[in-house]
Amino acid sequence: MFQLSKKADYGLIALKHLAQHTDGSVSAREIAVEYKIPAPLLAKVLQKLARKGLLVSQQGINGGYVLARDPSKISIVDVMEAIDGPIGMTPCERGSSCEQMDRCSVRDPLMKLKIKVVRVLGDTSITELAMN
Amino acid sequence: MFQLSKKADYGLIALKHLAQHTDGSVSAREIAVEYKIPAPLLAKVLQKLARKGLLVSQQGINGGYVLARDPSKISIVDVMEAIDGPIGMTPCERGSSCEQMDRCSVRDPLMKLKIKVVRVLGDTSITELAMN
Repeated sequence: MFQLSKKADYGLIALKHLAQHTDGSVSAREIAVEYKIPAPLLAKVLQKLARKGLLVSQQGINGGYVLARDPSKISIVDVMEAIDGPIGMTPCERGSSCEQMDRCSVRDPLMKLKIKVVRVLGDTSITELAMN
Repeated sequence: MFQLSKKADYGLIALKHLAQHTDGSVSAREIAVEYKIPAPLLAKVLQKLARKGLLVSQQGINGGYVLARDPSKISIVDVMEAIDGPIGMTPCERGSSCEQMDRCSVRDPLMKLKIKVVRVLGDTSITELAMN
């Protein structure tokens, strides 16, 4: 399957929401309700994005999250990798072993291809997501 | 997870092998042994690629598979889609339902992004895979 994880989806939805609501912090609960995302799962995703430096968590009675930097400086690939780790188009690139490891003929060309795919994902920012 | 399926991996390995061995048909067994791919699984992958018009199955004592067209005319995305169906970066694009369906804010921008990713995968052919 060549698709985003559900958690990455939730992360993108949340970051887009924050990019569109910059007049204060937004709580995880507000985002969970707005998009019908299971609250405990969204909480974990947002905590992870904060740990990875994409969000800042603000404490207090009106606490919540704000973007850690301008949304034009946060790419889709930043979010995907913060949540699921480095993108690898093949299991071996993600550290898994594989029966073909010692005789694989497609690993190197697929790694080169992955670099091109990551470039496309890296060229798209949360700002572009927020404008669409 | 943003990665190729194992079956798509096997398909690419097999097509690259066929692109490099054009002096006759190659049996599924030969490819399975060469790359340590489970033979029944590879057989299924090759049958699928033949059904989808990327390979031609030749019967007879020296039977096997040959590419249905020039490898420069077979892209990575042709192989991925022949094996796993149309690429969709999100589950909804692949027909799965989703809790966010009626209020999703990222579906449309992610579909546009997918078109760019598919273009990159479509611009890379089996010939390029075979040269690397």
